[in-house]
Amino acid sequence: MRISARNVFAGNVRDVTKGAVNAEVTIILPGGEHIVSIITNPSVDSLELAEGKPAFAIIKASDVIVGKNLGVAKLSARNVLPGEVTNVVDGAVSSEVVIRLTGGTTIVSSITKESVHALKLQAGDQVSAIIKAPHVLIGV
Amino acid sequence: MRISARNVFAGNVRDVTKGAVNAEVTIILPGGEHIVSIITNPSVDSLELAEGKPAFAIIKASDVIVGKNLGVAKLSARNVLPGEVTNVVDGAVSSEVVIRLTGGTTIVSSITKESVHALKLQAGDQVSAIIKAPHVLIGV
Amino acid sequence: MRISARNVFAGNVRDVTKGAVNAEVTIILPGGEHIVSIITNPSVDSLELAEGKPAFAIIKASDVIVGKNLGVAKLSARNVLPGEVTNVVDGAVSSEVVIRLTGGTTIVSSITKESVHALKLQAGDQVSAIIKAPHVLIGV
Repeated sequence: MRISARNVFAGNVRDVTKGAVNAEVTIILPGGEHIVSIITNPSVDSLELAEGKPAFAIIKASDVIVGKNLGVAKLSARNVLPGEVTNVVDGAVSSEVVIRLTGGTTIVSSITKESVHALKLQAGDQVSAIIKAPHVLIGV
Repeated sequence: MRISARNVFAGNVRDVTKGAVNAEVTIILPGGEHIVSIITNPSVDSLELAEGKPAFAIIKASDVIVGKNLGVAKLSARNVLPGEVTNVVDGAVSSEVVIRLTGGTTIVSSITKESVHALKLQAGDQVSAIIKAPHVLIGV
Repeated sequence: MRISARNVFAGNVRDVTKGAVNAEVTIILPGGEHIVSIITNPSVDSLELAEGKPAFAIIKASDVIVGKNLGVAKLSARNVLPGEVTNVVDGAVSSEVVIRLTGGTTIVSSITKESVHALKLQAGDQVSAIIKAPHVLIGV
């Protein structure tokens, strides 16, 4: 499988909680990071997701927010993953920020160039990659 | 109202399943494609969505992932629509990929230029347009 | 056209900046809030967006993150809008949080029930509604 999403992380299903329409699926990565995803119940069934099963967490770069100095801030986004900026590539309107998470996984974020400047983002910065659970796809 | 989303597909509601907060709505397009959307219950009520009603499935280009060689891969995204690349336009960081679905509908995807290169995307490629259900809006 | 997105805000275009593929469009709401959107250039042209033109900023509830105690935290999301929680409705997996922005606009966010509990969200809380620019559609 080749997919345009810049972030495709291999891991294992940690747990699955079903609601009426949607289910919450947690994937654990080899580096220890947990990625929480919200998908529909039929998808859980069709992918036969269950604890321990190998699965991919797939995240588009444009769905990753970068946070700095989060301190005591709390966010509703289920995925707030600490790491370090390793690279920033500027375009005309959008820029790409590469972050190495503490567990070793590399995540790519696409944000506006304006935000790169506002946050004075550069290699070496301690930041968090922030992703809402409904923005995470699961692949098997 | 006209809207900035590049993909606005006219079709008919095929079914509506309500949960506690969210509902799943399926739109069938003239070419036969099914588009699954997750919206909130108040939206279902306010748009008076019901089987057979004409409605639009609305998808931002930046919410469309492109997949190639999916083979036996399974994805949680409820919408995995096979088609053929008809055009690729590169920007500095982002690129636009145009896909003609098997039913004839044309869908536009905005992905990073890096992904266009990684997937070696070009006109004529057999691919799938992948869209998570919560990224599909419904209009009437 | 009426649309399923819970957040449809009437305002005026404040400015449009084009890149190679994407453009940044800022909408100013009557209450003074600025909403920044990233859309594709062809959408700017087709909607004939220009300074002063009346337009709608359209945001799905599932694209709104809720932040609390942001303090000195900085986020790459271009839209970080302060306000007060006026209502919380719990579902099985998802909850709905209603926020009245300082300018008077009401915004609806759909987050997981787990996050409502983690942030101890309740009416009266001072929070921020956080939305990435590519998640904002423009309507005219």
